[in-house]
Amino acid sequence: MPETLDIAVVGATGLVGEALVELLDERDFPVANLYLLASGESAGKSVAFRGRNIRVGKLDDFDFAKVRLAFLSVGAEAAVDCAARAVAAGCSVIDLSGASLNNAAALLAQACVNGDAVETLQLPALIAAPAAPAAEVAEVLAALRGVLELRQVTVSACLSASALGREGVQELARQTAELLNARPLEPRLVDRQFAFNMLAQLGGVDEQGYSVVERRVAAELAVLFPELKSGLSVTCSLAPVFFGDTLMLSIKAAAPVSLATVSAALDAAEGIELVEDDYPTVIGDAQGQDSVYVGRLRTGLTDSCELNLWIASDNVRKGAALNAVNLGELLIKHYL
Amino acid sequence: MPETLDIAVVGATGLVGEALVELLDERDFPVANLYLLASGESAGKSVAFRGRNIRVGKLDDFDFAKVRLAFLSVGAEAAVDCAARAVAAGCSVIDLSGASLNNAAALLAQACVNGDAVETLQLPALIAAPAAPAAEVAEVLAALRGVLELRQVTVSACLSASALGREGVQELARQTAELLNARPLEPRLVDRQFAFNMLAQLGGVDEQGYSVVERRVAAELAVLFPELKSGLSVTCSLAPVFFGDTLMLSIKAAAPVSLATVSAALDAAEGIELVEDDYPTVIGDAQGQDSVYVGRLRTGLTDSCELNLWIASDNVRKGAALNAVNLGELLIKHYL
Repeated sequence: MPETLDIAVVGATGLVGEALVELLDERDFPVANLYLLASGESAGKSVAFRGRNIRVGKLDDFDFAKVRLAFLSVGAEAAVDCAARAVAAGCSVIDLSGASLNNAAALLAQACVNGDAVETLQLPALIAAPAAPAAEVAEVLAALRGVLELRQVTVSACLSASALGREGVQELARQTAELLNARPLEPRLVDRQFAFNMLAQLGGVDEQGYSVVERRVAAELAVLFPELKSGLSVTCSLAPVFFGDTLMLSIKAAAPVSLATVSAALDAAEGIELVEDDYPTVIGDAQGQDSVYVGRLRTGLTDSCELNLWIASDNVRKGAALNAVNLGELLIKHYL
Repeated sequence: MPETLDIAVVGATGLVGEALVELLDERDFPVANLYLLASGESAGKSVAFRGRNIRVGKLDDFDFAKVRLAFLSVGAEAAVDCAARAVAAGCSVIDLSGASLNNAAALLAQACVNGDAVETLQLPALIAAPAAPAAEVAEVLAALRGVLELRQVTVSACLSASALGREGVQELARQTAELLNARPLEPRLVDRQFAFNMLAQLGGVDEQGYSVVERRVAAELAVLFPELKSGLSVTCSLAPVFFGDTLMLSIKAAAPVSLATVSAALDAAEGIELVEDDYPTVIGDAQGQDSVYVGRLRTGLTDSCELNLWIASDNVRKGAALNAVNLGELLIKHYL
């Protein structure tokens, strides 16, 4: 068996792509050759990995037979095509785009929920990684599942500019600077003032009024937690914050909730940092960290079967990239 | 019967106090003499009303026998004392502080919910006005109550810097400017970075983990909507936004929700502006307006008895001040 694998990161110049490359380095992922790929515009840039600069190649020209595993962090349309090409070439895929969710050949997976299923996959494998907010909620629900029978979960999410990618971060920065310098505000990426304003949704909504990310989060949580299939409510708003997801969860269990038990379960969970004396926020706590931060544990005002809590997480690093790398760490056991 | 009344606004230099004075003017409230009052530090300032400047007097020295009605927009402790002094002097009180909620002699009122009860009060009357987020939710629930049997309401609120008063607004502005100018951040009013960060709560929490505003909102909604007494869940976070409340509501009704019916009920409600093609936000829609803006109407992902919606409202003008002035407009029918 080899000791290292040839790996590709598709969408390497995006926020999540960069975090993927960083984490592959930091976690000593057994990489032989690393191929960084992007669509037309971004190809040609260089990204540092293990002390050298790797030139980003064109996705269209790439032969996936060169690698054993590819991480896909591109738009859903590009991901469908790319996943098909990769698997046909014998390369396993971890797709972060959401596009593989409805592909019957794909396994939706999160290490802390169904990581064992990854180890029994046929190769080449196609794994769908959840959206960052779904992964963050799933991390918490996986820990709670051992001590609560989950009935309903209401997720009220305040996502950040980075959920719109690097351009979202730039839009918020530009708008904020314009306002503070008393210059006329020119919204570009979004259709209105985003600085110092809460936006109700990301992008457009479907006929029933739900956005793509809300549908995705709900569908992914329903797969990972079938007991919640008829008990999920998801709203994703957009806060004028550069990085990090903050989520308000209201959970209904089948029986009265013991905070001591819940607290012990969260405290024992590997990917969770429980903050009990104070509360965690994205800045100062979650940003740049490898844990989902949880605080404000409290039972319902009048319903003892209700548990409310607050989550702060680095959506780019923890919610998206680390989650995918963790899946990669499980998958490569097939190869090494 | 007289045609005008002598009125006092206590806390006249605060954000809500200023909005009260503005609204008394704009709405041609039948004011004879207007007394503006504040505690030590702010007394002596001047505030414009109907084209002249009124000097703000010291609250401690004021004889409430001079006025028939006083609006109280001060801290809860000062309000308790002040309400007692006023009522003892024969002056009716509309208390915005929350302090009167637990006073058996007070009526918690909102014009659109139980305005008729105001008209039958004994004088001098003590009326408690709800906190801004409670008033905003109540405005929407009052309209829905005619078409839905309400079972549960989960309120996930993103309040703004102005919920901390003028100092909160200054704190957010100062922190934002420091960060954009790459100067070291010095949190003063809050214990951490507030600029570009979501805070999980306002102030401290009690033993059960709830903040003062969360308890107040839940208690007030339970009084105004007794059918929800055991069905309320309230979380109040703080967004890096200067003015305006944004609220995500998830409502469970006793029967399947008809969006057409709900939409018609909200559209017909006087204090509500329903936005159906797009979604409303605080900036550009709600700020400076006299309506609660409602959007993103949608039934549950899987539960047809669930209704989700989004509220944007000017917390200072609409949520607090206008609501109190509307109560005043009902109360003065006793005098005129």
